[in-house]
Amino acid sequence: VAGGLFDGVLARGRVREEVADRAWLTAMLDVEAALARAQARAGLIPTEDAEAIAAACRPDAFDLAAIGRDAAQSGTPVVPLVRALTEAVGGAAAAHVHAGATSQDVMDTAAMLVARRALEPLLEDLAGAADAAAGLAAAHRGTPIAGRTLLQQAAPTTFGAKAAGWLAGLDAAASRLAQVRSAVLAVQLGGAVGTLASLQDRGVEVLGVFAAELALAEPAVPWHTDRTRIAELAGALGVAAGAAGKPARDVTLLAQTEVAEVREEGTGGGSSTLPQKRNPVAAVCAVACALRAPALVGALHATMVQEHERAAGAWHAEWRSLSDLLSTVGSAAAWLRESLEHLEVDPARMRANLDLTGGMLLAERVTTALTPALGRLPAHELVERACGEAQSSGRPLADTLAAIPDLHAHLDAEAIGGLLDPTSYLGSAEVFVDRALDAHRGERNAT
Amino acid sequence: VAGGLFDGVLARGRVREEVADRAWLTAMLDVEAALARAQARAGLIPTEDAEAIAAACRPDAFDLAAIGRDAAQSGTPVVPLVRALTEAVGGAAAAHVHAGATSQDVMDTAAMLVARRALEPLLEDLAGAADAAAGLAAAHRGTPIAGRTLLQQAAPTTFGAKAAGWLAGLDAAASRLAQVRSAVLAVQLGGAVGTLASLQDRGVEVLGVFAAELALAEPAVPWHTDRTRIAELAGALGVAAGAAGKPARDVTLLAQTEVAEVREEGTGGGSSTLPQKRNPVAAVCAVACALRAPALVGALHATMVQEHERAAGAWHAEWRSLSDLLSTVGSAAAWLRESLEHLEVDPARMRANLDLTGGMLLAERVTTALTPALGRLPAHELVERACGEAQSSGRPLADTLAAIPDLHAHLDAEAIGGLLDPTSYLGSAEVFVDRALDAHRGERNAT
Amino acid sequence: VAGGLFDGVLARGRVREEVADRAWLTAMLDVEAALARAQARAGLIPTEDAEAIAAACRPDAFDLAAIGRDAAQSGTPVVPLVRALTEAVGGAAAAHVHAGATSQDVMDTAAMLVARRALEPLLEDLAGAADAAAGLAAAHRGTPIAGRTLLQQAAPTTFGAKAAGWLAGLDAAASRLAQVRSAVLAVQLGGAVGTLASLQDRGVEVLGVFAAELALAEPAVPWHTDRTRIAELAGALGVAAGAAGKPARDVTLLAQTEVAEVREEGTGGGSSTLPQKRNPVAAVCAVACALRAPALVGALHATMVQEHERAAGAWHAEWRSLSDLLSTVGSAAAWLRESLEHLEVDPARMRANLDLTGGMLLAERVTTALTPALGRLPAHELVERACGEAQSSGRPLADTLAAIPDLHAHLDAEAIGGLLDPTSYLGSAEVFVDRALDAHRGERNAT
Amino acid sequence: VAGGLFDGVLARGRVREEVADRAWLTAMLDVEAALARAQARAGLIPTEDAEAIAAACRPDAFDLAAIGRDAAQSGTPVVPLVRALTEAVGGAAAAHVHAGATSQDVMDTAAMLVARRALEPLLEDLAGAADAAAGLAAAHRGTPIAGRTLLQQAAPTTFGAKAAGWLAGLDAAASRLAQVRSAVLAVQLGGAVGTLASLQDRGVEVLGVFAAELALAEPAVPWHTDRTRIAELAGALGVAAGAAGKPARDVTLLAQTEVAEVREEGTGGGSSTLPQKRNPVAAVCAVACALRAPALVGALHATMVQEHERAAGAWHAEWRSLSDLLSTVGSAAAWLRESLEHLEVDPARMRANLDLTGGMLLAERVTTALTPALGRLPAHELVERACGEAQSSGRPLADTLAAIPDLHAHLDAEAIGGLLDPTSYLGSAEVFVDRALDAHRGERNAT
Repeated sequence: VAGGLFDGVLARGRVREEVADRAWLTAMLDVEAALARAQARAGLIPTEDAEAIAAACRPDAFDLAAIGRDAAQSGTPVVPLVRALTEAVGGAAAAHVHAGATSQDVMDTAAMLVARRALEPLLEDLAGAADAAAGLAAAHRGTPIAGRTLLQQAAPTTFGAKAAGWLAGLDAAASRLAQVRSAVLAVQLGGAVGTLASLQDRGVEVLGVFAAELALAEPAVPWHTDRTRIAELAGALGVAAGAAGKPARDVTLLAQTEVAEVREEGTGGGSSTLPQKRNPVAAVCAVACALRAPALVGALHATMVQEHERAAGAWHAEWRSLSDLLSTVGSAAAWLRESLEHLEVDPARMRANLDLTGGMLLAERVTTALTPALGRLPAHELVERACGEAQSSGRPLADTLAAIPDLHAHLDAEAIGGLLDPTSYLGSAEVFVDRALDAHRGERNAT
Repeated sequence: VAGGLFDGVLARGRVREEVADRAWLTAMLDVEAALARAQARAGLIPTEDAEAIAAACRPDAFDLAAIGRDAAQSGTPVVPLVRALTEAVGGAAAAHVHAGATSQDVMDTAAMLVARRALEPLLEDLAGAADAAAGLAAAHRGTPIAGRTLLQQAAPTTFGAKAAGWLAGLDAAASRLAQVRSAVLAVQLGGAVGTLASLQDRGVEVLGVFAAELALAEPAVPWHTDRTRIAELAGALGVAAGAAGKPARDVTLLAQTEVAEVREEGTGGGSSTLPQKRNPVAAVCAVACALRAPALVGALHATMVQEHERAAGAWHAEWRSLSDLLSTVGSAAAWLRESLEHLEVDPARMRANLDLTGGMLLAERVTTALTPALGRLPAHELVERACGEAQSSGRPLADTLAAIPDLHAHLDAEAIGGLLDPTSYLGSAEVFVDRALDAHRGERNAT
Repeated sequence: VAGGLFDGVLARGRVREEVADRAWLTAMLDVEAALARAQARAGLIPTEDAEAIAAACRPDAFDLAAIGRDAAQSGTPVVPLVRALTEAVGGAAAAHVHAGATSQDVMDTAAMLVARRALEPLLEDLAGAADAAAGLAAAHRGTPIAGRTLLQQAAPTTFGAKAAGWLAGLDAAASRLAQVRSAVLAVQLGGAVGTLASLQDRGVEVLGVFAAELALAEPAVPWHTDRTRIAELAGALGVAAGAAGKPARDVTLLAQTEVAEVREEGTGGGSSTLPQKRNPVAAVCAVACALRAPALVGALHATMVQEHERAAGAWHAEWRSLSDLLSTVGSAAAWLRESLEHLEVDPARMRANLDLTGGMLLAERVTTALTPALGRLPAHELVERACGEAQSSGRPLADTLAAIPDLHAHLDAEAIGGLLDPTSYLGSAEVFVDRALDAHRGERNAT
Repeated sequence: VAGGLFDGVLARGRVREEVADRAWLTAMLDVEAALARAQARAGLIPTEDAEAIAAACRPDAFDLAAIGRDAAQSGTPVVPLVRALTEAVGGAAAAHVHAGATSQDVMDTAAMLVARRALEPLLEDLAGAADAAAGLAAAHRGTPIAGRTLLQQAAPTTFGAKAAGWLAGLDAAASRLAQVRSAVLAVQLGGAVGTLASLQDRGVEVLGVFAAELALAEPAVPWHTDRTRIAELAGALGVAAGAAGKPARDVTLLAQTEVAEVREEGTGGGSSTLPQKRNPVAAVCAVACALRAPALVGALHATMVQEHERAAGAWHAEWRSLSDLLSTVGSAAAWLRESLEHLEVDPARMRANLDLTGGMLLAERVTTALTPALGRLPAHELVERACGEAQSSGRPLADTLAAIPDLHAHLDAEAIGGLLDPTSYLGSAEVFVDRALDAHRGERNAT
């Protein structure tokens, strides 16, 4: 598959090949072959004719560009493909090419095949990214880092707990995608309008064999204009994009020059003009790929309202959007995996950043300590005042707290010092790491 | 809940109340009450204090507009709510209000409660619409109607098979939503940055009791910036919107003056200027509501990439979008149910429309009949020619076929007449109806 | 440019080539050449070096796939392109390749060039479609047709007035796009962070010459992270997509088997299985292409919030979306033009459809005639009742009206007959046609 | 207007009231009044009747909730409103209420009025934000700050140049919105299907007077299903959202604890649990509001493809989306203005951050200085190597450069020191500030 100018950035990993036009052509031919074999197994056509058809379904034998061009005549590439395949088969078997099916049967079933094949590297990369996140969570289970809310340091947590949050999102996304792959991806076979009329009373039988041939689910009824399968797939891909984009976003923030708590080692990251730049290029590209997904999800939901037995436009609009969505989510997963597998973590810098605010990050803890005596809101307001004084004066919070007479009855300087030590205020961070790792092991064993 | 100017059209059914601002306030107070009770059950605060807090959590006691206004100070309505609640509780118990939690814990868990409560009428209306579709499928299992592709008559099917397709989509959407409701909707409790530090070593215990109190799932780790739950919910709602919009769209098409195969009886439909108009107003409004969903799904996927331990904007952007999405999908379901429950079907007109083309709708069947003798493509081209002549001359297809000498060896006039009879060319339409109805019964029993 | 499998349907017209990866490569090289020449004209580098660089900027000399692949290292194809170009130039001139610029300068300016070049066929096809609509409006200025609201026949209009509405939308879209092309498309040149520091005090001078070289607008300041230009372009393209999709949608509806008021002659439209089908394939494909645009517009608006002096992901996410948007809108325009240029109109069928309802389409007119005597609402309700009786009984509206005694004082049978004649109730339809045609002539002269 | 629970965050400034349901009701009544007056001025109805109608058009006299509820019958609130208005007018004048118009005329023209009124505070807040950005640009024209690309420090710029970039975006957005307001917002008047048939041959005359009455543009033809006006408005609003979100995003990044170059003084920013937090709450809320816009833009572009003379759903879907879009963009502008007007800038911290990297930020400059002697690529690679050594060893770049023997012939230690001084490497930053300020003055004078 020839590469494009933006592929290095926006089409990462093996998924690129699985959604390429050639992969679609292959899938369409696989569908025609399976259809012929299913009819043979149902006794509708001779087995040797089916095998002749299947043998002709070699992608290399077809002129993809010509088929694409001729699609303009009918509005679908299936018409020129069937014509070319019929010619390639020749002889008596040619009469059975595409028998019983309509263009949409081929396109929709091919879309399911493409999706299933693209989900393979995609799920592998998601799992790889999750494994890397799990590795970080385990290794940094207790490494203190500033927790940040609204981009402000808020209270301590551990880098492991942060990575555990990434892991939970990635596992949830992978789990849902795996579920969609096994339960939602199904063959489509309905003939012209969904009755399989040209197969007489053998339609349902052929449908079953056809599904078995392709190892896709068998739907209760044709789903030509019931697009819930496409939309469920799109939704699950959108969730995966977000789950991949979130850690990537955090990496770009943690790698900021002024934060410098992580950096990517060995992912490239040079600049055309700035020799000193060490950009977290994998994380940046993961964000870029993830950002492209939501609109494509919306697009594939917007085309669900399809008229009667085949839509006048909404169906055709799906093809490219589905390919692009698989590609961009697969690429986001591949880039994230690369980023996390190459992440260098700097615990010393994490600790130094934690100490930047002179104890203020632990202000909540002082509030909690004072609450039994003062009530939560009065305690909150008192500590808020001490923080304000610390910020305006530049003095450590320990000092401004100690200067408040009301406090002396409740806390002495040593108690204040203890309360302001971040490493003793990590709550359940490490337990949460363990829970996420347990869940991840369960998830990995299940798939 | 006071109604808005567009509510009659765009906020249909009970879902409107479940996503109203008052419902959010109620949910937020339910969260505060459950939090207090959970801490009492964990032995962290006295039971009577928890009950005092819970007793104060009455929505009517709070000034919603003032809380909304004061939210501007901190960027969240939780801050003013907690202040007001603390005042309302008074005494020693006041010290325990909101203890251990952060604003996002309250908002996120409230969002889950709102979603669960809104899903109740939504799923009821989806089920009602599905039941109505099932009723139509059963009643018109064998009623012939033109199957239409690209808005052109293509081949016969039955109205029952059409309704079975609607049913399959509605059932798939409902099934997924029910799954999300039970497995994805979970409490959020993490404190300032997800460590539950202010609960010391009791965080995980409180989390478990808190989830049990609210009958929501317990997450392995806090999900403050893992938005896969929100996005999965959004995706499932988007699927439901599409599943509801599709039949509604078909109803508007079937009700066209020139088609007139169905009409809504008793749903309103008057016009301000046109006394003769009988608009399928329920279906039109269902389409309108369904059309609003995809962008909101995209919006809730786009806000998944949230920074660190709380996003600087992306989190806040979710609130209204989630409410709107629940509302518009619930409204689409309610309108569709109303449309399908009031649908009058005109089988005679369906048959008359089928006959409009003088047999051409069965052209595919003639191709199939000729294929064994001629091969599929030559047969296709021969029949295509006869169709062209019929269209340009206005003569019935039977005649233009009979005029082709090559055909005489294969088909006589009687055979042609039989092939062109739509009622004998319905394939597996009725079997598919039965399969969809079976699946529907299974689905209904499962929920 | 090798064609893709879906290009026949989704990438129509010349726009396909203008947004292909090769066109991007060409534009990037044009930018490097212009940059070198601008520096020469500013006296910063020798003219012969600039010409040596410009001479090396031949797209065929570069390995597009390799550049695309190597882009993964730095996150942009500019880095490997500059490396390859520097090698190709060789000698002393090589030192001046890309001098002063950063990757984003090249990508953003190339994007503007690609947009301007793609807008050429796009605007030509939009204008062609508008001309065709104008032709239909003029030819059918007075041809009666049923006006349809909510897909129900409502009152008579003319097909010319309908086409005039299409025309107005197409002209508005083209006018805005032309405005964007001349006022919004601008060079980007800022160097590493927008200061042009490596050009010392000659930055602004070089910027001006650079813009003149490429015949793009000169921005007041670098716009690296001010994405209003991209978003304005995207918005204007989205408007054009909607303006093209609307007439295409109407064509598919008017071409329905049961309506049959128009058909496409000679655009293809065959089916793989249904020999009788004459699908309005150009209109269907125009709808498909138009449907893909809104999500891409949303995507390009969503990536506007770009960090500091270059975004960590949002910028990269633009590239493919912009290409796709130009392509799909250009394709929608090309398909619509083809549809309208091949549209066969059937005035007799329009008239027959108008008569389907036995005069009820003119009910509003009876209301208007009765209003002076009865008041608007009572008149409306009376006529509504007569319509109801006509619908339920199948009798013509003239009869059910005549049977209402209250009416006799105001209208006799002849008056009723006159009121129910559609050809005398076309209001300002023809004047509106003239106004739209006048405006179109003005628009065409302006461009 | 009663406030909602999220209004403090998501519905900021006066725009909230201008898009409230009551504002829509007011606009609808303004339309009915203008319609009556226009007919009187055209001599179609008595002036006193028109004035009686206009006098009855007082919003307080109508039950908004009841009208909203009854809208369900017809699918539009205009039908119950016209009924209530007709009753309120009474007497002979009642017969002329709503004469000649259809529901969509009222809704669409009301939408234009609502938009125009909402644009007033919106443009005022955009201009206020732009003025604040201009103030920052002027005050910090030469204040050095690290320019950051991909969130990494890249090269020096000035804070003034950064603010000038914000300013340029805000001015571009405001300019386009002002253009839309004056040229695109137009009355809609077409009657049932766009012919104004019930106004006989006076339609065009009434249209002109009607437009003059409301001070909206007069369209050449009715635009009932030409939604380019709505979509152009939506696009311009989307651009404004992005232009407002960009500076807000930068503020949240610059305000990070570890960066601390700016902070909001006096915008609130407290936390429910963290007493020390000083969140840039205005910027965060501006980001939140801006983030909601793109999906709504996409939604309003997606509903452009409207059927025939009134869409069966797509039209109704616009109402809430348009209101929400105006509201969220107006809120983003109001919040951004508040943020920028309260921004405290810390030039010392900016300088300290610039010095964090020991001169590496000026590496590009060394490359430029070496390029004449070595060629651009070799120079780039040499400096890149020195940067790598500085990063791994922690030594200043000046030292690692000095240690490279190849350099001695070209640069001595003093020359290196001069090259690495950020304040002498600001290029055209200040000139660009001046250009942006000039353009802003021009923009402000024009409006």
